[in-house]
Amino acid sequence: MIQKISHIGIAVKNIDEVLPYYEKSLGMKCTAREEVASQKVKVAFFPVGDTRIELLEPTSPESPIAKFLEQKGEGIHHIAFDTDNIEDQLKNAKESGVRLINETPIPGAHGMQVAFLHPKSTFGVLTELCAEPKHH
Amino acid sequence: MIQKISHIGIAVKNIDEVLPYYEKSLGMKCTAREEVASQKVKVAFFPVGDTRIELLEPTSPESPIAKFLEQKGEGIHHIAFDTDNIEDQLKNAKESGVRLINETPIPGAHGMQVAFLHPKSTFGVLTELCAEPKHH
Repeated sequence: MIQKISHIGIAVKNIDEVLPYYEKSLGMKCTAREEVASQKVKVAFFPVGDTRIELLEPTSPESPIAKFLEQKGEGIHHIAFDTDNIEDQLKNAKESGVRLINETPIPGAHGMQVAFLHPKSTFGVLTELCAEPKHH
Repeated sequence: MIQKISHIGIAVKNIDEVLPYYEKSLGMKCTAREEVASQKVKVAFFPVGDTRIELLEPTSPESPIAKFLEQKGEGIHHIAFDTDNIEDQLKNAKESGVRLINETPIPGAHGMQVAFLHPKSTFGVLTELCAEPKHH
């Protein structure tokens, strides 16, 4: 079951140039920055309510974010939902006709398990499902 | 001060066609539907955590959503933040160089006061500020 929005991912060319907008113009706080090597991005986190804004800056032209910026320019890249059972959620989505980018969850940031749904089957919204890893 | 994300607005061609994705494939609940004549849109609401997804369908070719669909296709249209002081928030944004679409708040859905920031000055993200109306 979907519990809340984990984060909203926003593609930007250069985090340093965008920080003053979120911090000064909107008054939000950047609580952490990190590099996610597997996705070839730098990320800056802005908690807001029970979710957060994540600014995503490509670290390589092969980054999915670099390709997005080339095609669409800066803007909202994806929505991620927290779910309490990512396997069931993916199974249910697939059975109802959704095209999965990841058939099984892959490791994401913060040790989360994540999987993406293809925007061609989600009415234009790149959608990520996130779950805490299972402890056996 | 920004308190939380009020909603995420998603532009769609036809709410009836998109409902099964959110309800069946994702398992979310549509709690209300309404028509906002001033914006020439129909809206469907899906609460999630402390925020909500709003599907926006144009009711006329002159709707801002119709224009968005023409230019970009279906997808995320805007993010709206709840603030406890929309006048201060707008003043601060303007003074720090943000271009305002609404210099002063206008009436939005549910009796809220709302104002939009121009995506050219917010790194591609159409941003709405929302506040409860003041009671004197």
